[in-house]
Amino acid sequence: MIILGIDPGIATVGFGIIKAQGSGQSLVRCGVIRTEAGQRLSLRLKQIHSDVTELIEAFRPDAIAVEEIFFNTNQTTGISVAQGRGVILLAGEQKGVPLFEYTPLQVKQTVTGYGRAEKRQVMEMVRRLLGLNVIPQPDDAADALAVAICHARAATSLLSQLGGNVCSTI
Amino acid sequence: MIILGIDPGIATVGFGIIKAQGSGQSLVRCGVIRTEAGQRLSLRLKQIHSDVTELIEAFRPDAIAVEEIFFNTNQTTGISVAQGRGVILLAGEQKGVPLFEYTPLQVKQTVTGYGRAEKRQVMEMVRRLLGLNVIPQPDDAADALAVAICHARAATSLLSQLGGNVCSTI
Repeated sequence: MIILGIDPGIATVGFGIIKAQGSGQSLVRCGVIRTEAGQRLSLRLKQIHSDVTELIEAFRPDAIAVEEIFFNTNQTTGISVAQGRGVILLAGEQKGVPLFEYTPLQVKQTVTGYGRAEKRQVMEMVRRLLGLNVIPQPDDAADALAVAICHARAATSLLSQLGGNVCSTI
Repeated sequence: MIILGIDPGIATVGFGIIKAQGSGQSLVRCGVIRTEAGQRLSLRLKQIHSDVTELIEAFRPDAIAVEEIFFNTNQTTGISVAQGRGVILLAGEQKGVPLFEYTPLQVKQTVTGYGRAEKRQVMEMVRRLLGLNVIPQPDDAADALAVAICHARAATSLLSQLGGNVCSTI
């Protein structure tokens, strides 16, 4: 099963594509979509939508896992990120790929076994689980891989424990 | 000049299309796009994107004016509405129509001349300015017409007063 994990954003969208076989996962590709800060918002949204669509066409994922967003102090940034997330979900739906969403807590819990894990510990687990020598860069790409691994593990766990509630369709 | 005004949302998106000639405005069409509450979010986003695209193709607006959003108490609703707004802006950008945004305060101020106007007063002004017998229904459609009128007036005012700062490109 090919899984596309996405860490939503407006300036930087992280993506991580993995192959899940049995209980193991391997890296296919990861990286970031970057949009220019000076560009108008609608153009940045168009680029994100078009780049995510291209990723789906190129790697044909069986599932897309997108991190949920929460707003902290900066409401303006939060609204921009949510608008970006909207066009990411749209791209998945238009291509008919099942979408799943996970909270940051679920990602940490599922990847490290510990909901209060530090960001560094999550990244180290991503490196180890994918059998890599170094942690993938930049951070947003590693974050996206964590979301993809979270879905791989949640999906496996769901298959073995019917009625599990780890993953939810968007 | 044909203007498409939009009041963003996820359950209900209001739209109002007007024709602006000189200092006058007339109604072309208004209504709402409704999505089913039980449907998954990505499907609702797809419907909004597709319906807005159809409106643009059918009425060929010269400009699209979208209300800005702010978050109040309900963060979850706020995130959904922002995701909906993202696919609306995307539809406009994909069709190459210039997009403008206005705050609720700018809309009230420009339509009624008074930033603290009640919702009812704004709707009554929409009715009067468009020369209608009754206030357009539902409320979201009337709100969208107010945003369109706001842009018509801001654009006219900008043409006559260079350097005005009433409208801003998204």
